Amino acid sequence: MKKVFVIGAGRSATTMISYLLDHAHSEDWQVTVGDMNLELAAEKVGQHARGRAIAFDIQDTAQRAAEIGAADLVISLLPAHMHVLAAEECLANGVHLVTASYVSPEMAALDAQAKEKGLVFLNEIGVDPGIDHMSTMEMLDRIQDMGGVLKSYKSYCGALIAPESNNMWGYKFTWAPRNVILAGQGTAKYRKEGRERYIPYHQLFRRIEEIDVPGYGSFDAYANRDSLKYSAVYGMDGVETLFRATLRVPGYCQMWDAFVQMGITDHSYRLPHSQGLTLRDFVFSFVPAHAGLRDVERLAFFLDQPSDSTVIRKIVALDLLSDRQIPLDNASPAEILEWILMEKWLFDPNDTDMVVMQHQLEYELGGKRHRLISSMVDKGINRWDTSIARTVGLPAAIAARLILKGRIQTYGVVLPIHREIFQPVLQELKKFGIHFTEQQFLVGEAVGV
Amino acid sequence: MKKVFVIGAGRSATTMISYLLDHAHSEDWQVTVGDMNLELAAEKVGQHARGRAIAFDIQDTAQRAAEIGAADLVISLLPAHMHVLAAEECLANGVHLVTASYVSPEMAALDAQAKEKGLVFLNEIGVDPGIDHMSTMEMLDRIQDMGGVLKSYKSYCGALIAPESNNMWGYKFTWAPRNVILAGQGTAKYRKEGRERYIPYHQLFRRIEEIDVPGYGSFDAYANRDSLKYSAVYGMDGVETLFRATLRVPGYCQMWDAFVQMGITDHSYRLPHSQGLTLRDFVFSFVPAHAGLRDVERLAFFLDQPSDSTVIRKIVALDLLSDRQIPLDNASPAEILEWILMEKWLFDPNDTDMVVMQHQLEYELGGKRHRLISSMVDKGINRWDTSIARTVGLPAAIAARLILKGRIQTYGVVLPIHREIFQPVLQELKKFGIHFTEQQFLVGEAVGV
Repeated sequence: MKKVFVIGAGRSATTMISYLLDHAHSEDWQVTVGDMNLELAAEKVGQHARGRAIAFDIQDTAQRAAEIGAADLVISLLPAHMHVLAAEECLANGVHLVTASYVSPEMAALDAQAKEKGLVFLNEIGVDPGIDHMSTMEMLDRIQDMGGVLKSYKSYCGALIAPESNNMWGYKFTWAPRNVILAGQGTAKYRKEGRERYIPYHQLFRRIEEIDVPGYGSFDAYANRDSLKYSAVYGMDGVETLFRATLRVPGYCQMWDAFVQMGITDHSYRLPHSQGLTLRDFVFSFVPAHAGLRDVERLAFFLDQPSDSTVIRKIVALDLLSDRQIPLDNASPAEILEWILMEKWLFDPNDTDMVVMQHQLEYELGGKRHRLISSMVDKGINRWDTSIARTVGLPAAIAARLILKGRIQTYGVVLPIHREIFQPVLQELKKFGIHFTEQQFLVGEAVGV
Repeated sequence: MKKVFVIGAGRSATTMISYLLDHAHSEDWQVTVGDMNLELAAEKVGQHARGRAIAFDIQDTAQRAAEIGAADLVISLLPAHMHVLAAEECLANGVHLVTASYVSPEMAALDAQAKEKGLVFLNEIGVDPGIDHMSTMEMLDRIQDMGGVLKSYKSYCGALIAPESNNMWGYKFTWAPRNVILAGQGTAKYRKEGRERYIPYHQLFRRIEEIDVPGYGSFDAYANRDSLKYSAVYGMDGVETLFRATLRVPGYCQMWDAFVQMGITDHSYRLPHSQGLTLRDFVFSFVPAHAGLRDVERLAFFLDQPSDSTVIRKIVALDLLSDRQIPLDNASPAEILEWILMEKWLFDPNDTDMVVMQHQLEYELGGKRHRLISSMVDKGINRWDTSIARTVGLPAAIAARLILKGRIQTYGVVLPIHREIFQPVLQELKKFGIHFTEQQFLVGEAVGV
């Protein structure tokens, strides 16, 4: 009997744990779920004969050694910076590891040791990162197998709210709110027509690109922080255009740009007297005064908007011009904005979330330039199997099964960019309705020989 | 005989060293000037009988102990982060210390020890910081002596180029170029009508204030990074408005705002292939493409300017749309901008610089609101006695003389906010033509009782 140990039983663990339990008999597994909150773990495991829920604290060295030491494979859903604690214990005990997080430098440093011990430390096997890597490499493989040469790669992904659950702001928090508030801070980097391009943060939400997803209409995209990170990993150093972006419902970026222009997404300093400050006074700590203008007009003037514009109405509907008092003391502008939005953008158990992904590739083949558009839309099924839980959890769970069956023989700290990983994972995801729809075009003129 | 040791013989040391040598006979001093560059030190000391030039390296522990140990007072013109090396040696040897730099946390930590040993470690005694502190405290003293209550304090300072030496951009580097490029990055903080106000960097150079300096016309001011820093130091915690700003020639801020909007003042990342990149390609790494637009139009469209506007003409005149190649590899945008500007904004030995300072105070007295405007303009005299050298060097040198005469009895890490310092220093600065002109007004309506 193989032992799987899942660390973390939060929202995004639901679908993953169901998958593991559903396969526990046929694969002869015992599935242990550990969380600081035992109740949460117990709820996820239910009465399953091969399931076991425990209270687990990664910082407890004795428990860490005992539980990880007893496992054949660990799936860590810990906050990203804590994976390495699990990874070191896995190394010491010869246990495989799966995470949906970006490879940290600390994780990368374990590559040689994991390789030497024949262990798979598979990371970035969620949705973004995860399904994006796998679907990209699958298309790239196909193009190269045909003899095509990739010229342009653009990739878009967004964790959104389904149209039927939408609010006037076009967003609810289905994912870590702080990450949404701080998204894009710094400088976005990408490549276009062979050259690096840069977008400073204060321009990011106004330099949007509109894309169309068949059956779902249009979305706005803003550039990710560092599109160049995967150039070498994907083997795309010679590709002229390399751009990764985040999708939002139309109108969202224009509203978020207003927050950026005001400066209220900043987390680099604190307001010494934030407690008791009204939201109106908070806003007008950033927006300069203009004699004779009412609040709405003053804000509209600052944002260069008509005072009845959609953006202004969205801001007013967040109570930002009201006398509501801020309960947080010594808070950063970002923390205050998060507090404001948490209430208005609450993801309700009755809401449906939606993950949207699209890749736009251009390649040369047979003297012609081809365009391949591949789109995936996944919706949540119920309050437990949200789309985030499905698209993060299923790839990780499927990969865990492949590792335990000995089907993955790439050892060390690994991304799902290898055929032996992405082919069977993408194949099985289809059974769960997670699949891409492709469109093929020929781009205008023939390419000179 | 007292021994004065000046560390650093760069541009801003000239006037200071002259002052010290001019007083060496009457005060019975020996003046040693140490610099990494012996020639520079020797040039500043000349043939003066009481002067001595040495090659000096603050990192050489033996030399540091010997030279500082032999002195009665050290004036450090080292880069700010190196003062503490001199300060610790001063502590060990019972030597007074004078610097024109901001007090660092490391310097502040030596306060108790310096106090205990009866040493004066006087900092921030240049122009800004320095003359600003002294003239502020002097006015505040006068207002309080009359029974007035300060309500509003605004202070402006700029190290500029004199009108007769001006170029089309309204600026030359009379001061550390890197500081000019990075000026204002972060969030500006000040107090207005009793409340903290914030200006994010991308708004800083468009939220300008215009001030008038009698005889010199108008200047534009942008907010300093942290005006609140001196609230407690100046005893101004109860003052409704507290604002410190940097002065520029009209038009400069609008041009600099264009650089900020493009993102080319950023020093937080590097361009991997900057060497050999043309300036045109550098600019268009930041400015998005628009089909059918020529370079100038494309830039003008991005900046929301007519293509023959002053800002666009200033940018074109910097060769920013030319095929000139960047010689720096792996450089940050800020480093590239600095390289571009260094050549165009070179301060020539025949140029005249100018330091402009203005304070605007409002106070209540006798049931009325009064407005006091105090302005100082100083111009360089020749290529050695620039205004920067005069306004930084003279306050420090005068204060050094006062310390050696035992006239300053505030010990520890000290700012020139004490009457025994600012009164005689400001008095003596007048002899060198550095003085303030005041205007008094009554503000509109009477204040309710």
